[in-house]
Amino acid sequence: MSTQRYFIQLAYNGAPFNGWQIQPEAPSVQQELEEALSKILRHPINVVGCGRTDSGVHASKFFAHFETHKKIDAKSLLFKVNCIISFEIALYKIYKVDSEMHARFSANSRTYHYFINPIKDPFYFKTSWFMHQDLDLVKMNQACAHLLGSHDFTSFSKLHTQTRTNDCTISEAKWEKIDNQLRFTITADRFLHNMVRAIVGTCVNVGKGKITPLDFKEIIELKSRQKAGASVPAHGLFLVDVTYP
Amino acid sequence: MSTQRYFIQLAYNGAPFNGWQIQPEAPSVQQELEEALSKILRHPINVVGCGRTDSGVHASKFFAHFETHKKIDAKSLLFKVNCIISFEIALYKIYKVDSEMHARFSANSRTYHYFINPIKDPFYFKTSWFMHQDLDLVKMNQACAHLLGSHDFTSFSKLHTQTRTNDCTISEAKWEKIDNQLRFTITADRFLHNMVRAIVGTCVNVGKGKITPLDFKEIIELKSRQKAGASVPAHGLFLVDVTYP
Repeated sequence: MSTQRYFIQLAYNGAPFNGWQIQPEAPSVQQELEEALSKILRHPINVVGCGRTDSGVHASKFFAHFETHKKIDAKSLLFKVNCIISFEIALYKIYKVDSEMHARFSANSRTYHYFINPIKDPFYFKTSWFMHQDLDLVKMNQACAHLLGSHDFTSFSKLHTQTRTNDCTISEAKWEKIDNQLRFTITADRFLHNMVRAIVGTCVNVGKGKITPLDFKEIIELKSRQKAGASVPAHGLFLVDVTYP
Repeated sequence: MSTQRYFIQLAYNGAPFNGWQIQPEAPSVQQELEEALSKILRHPINVVGCGRTDSGVHASKFFAHFETHKKIDAKSLLFKVNCIISFEIALYKIYKVDSEMHARFSANSRTYHYFINPIKDPFYFKTSWFMHQDLDLVKMNQACAHLLGSHDFTSFSKLHTQTRTNDCTISEAKWEKIDNQLRFTITADRFLHNMVRAIVGTCVNVGKGKITPLDFKEIIELKSRQKAGASVPAHGLFLVDVTYP
């Protein structure tokens, strides 16, 4: 019996989860998804995600893959999984892919949003960081211009990680005002652990006038996490897009 | 010492509350607000709301009034209350009004939204009703046209309430598609208990093709709750505006 690989496009609200990845004694999106698929397909299913989001981080577009030897009606499987999985996870597509397609390693780019709400909002307190202070978006965008291109982003990386290199290529980095909220968009070929939240924290320091856009540029060049700003809270961060060949 | 009346403009996420109104042994917005104001102003404060929302119903614009003999710095009071009250309640304005202004009795009109989400969405499952079925918006809007004007709305009222009359004047009633969601907007001088949710439930029956827009008109004329549709869930309902002279 031959095995077929499938991609899943899904979204999740990270609030109740300790991130994507399975961990002992903690709820995770991966575990819920594996349990639901295994239950419906009646054999153990291993799901591989496009990345590991931290505890509390959301994803409005996330991809994962799994394999099965069973014949699948993708539409019916989609419906069944959505029925038994939590309200905080929604599957949008299940489709066949070649066995070389890998949710994590085949990805060309990932895009994140970070939301800051300068006004207390009872409907977004779990999906936007409430930060009651005026920020200078013009200066924050001047700082962001220095992120574009290929750089060693050790300054915005968690220390002592096991990555081979800290080089990333950033193709987009900008702040916008959308309704009442500030929205940061960043696209790169890869991200280091904690990188977006450290970049946002450093941008906020620029927006507050604590440092200048030129200081921001120097922070990148120094390759030292100490000089960058604090990491902002997880609940404002969304993985919003992943592209594949 | 003379007493001054103040209006508060606020918003709340109804999810954790048993509605606006104080009830024994159940969390309510009114109770949280009275406790916060009493604590800061150091005397018992009674707060009068512009209406009673049911358990789980939200408000993006809600008004309430209270009185105090204390001198108030409205901006500082606003900040302090927002700091000690839950994330699910946000105060936006506190301002002096004449003693005849009454949050409930002075209101000219109220506007509600009801949201239906035909797609499972992990970010809106507490603020929109997930209803996986195609609805005919054109027919629903044809039905809604019959709501406009002054009518006896007994058909959409909870039975055995103590209101003097069931006459209401509806000035706006329409369905729209906003992004992925369906949004109902209704404005009237007053609403009967459970009225919006019963109207929405009956509109949904039109949208599903169970009844025609003409049947909808007849349901209004029959003045019988039995003929109308079931009341839809509370969590899709928002009070979004209240107007005063």
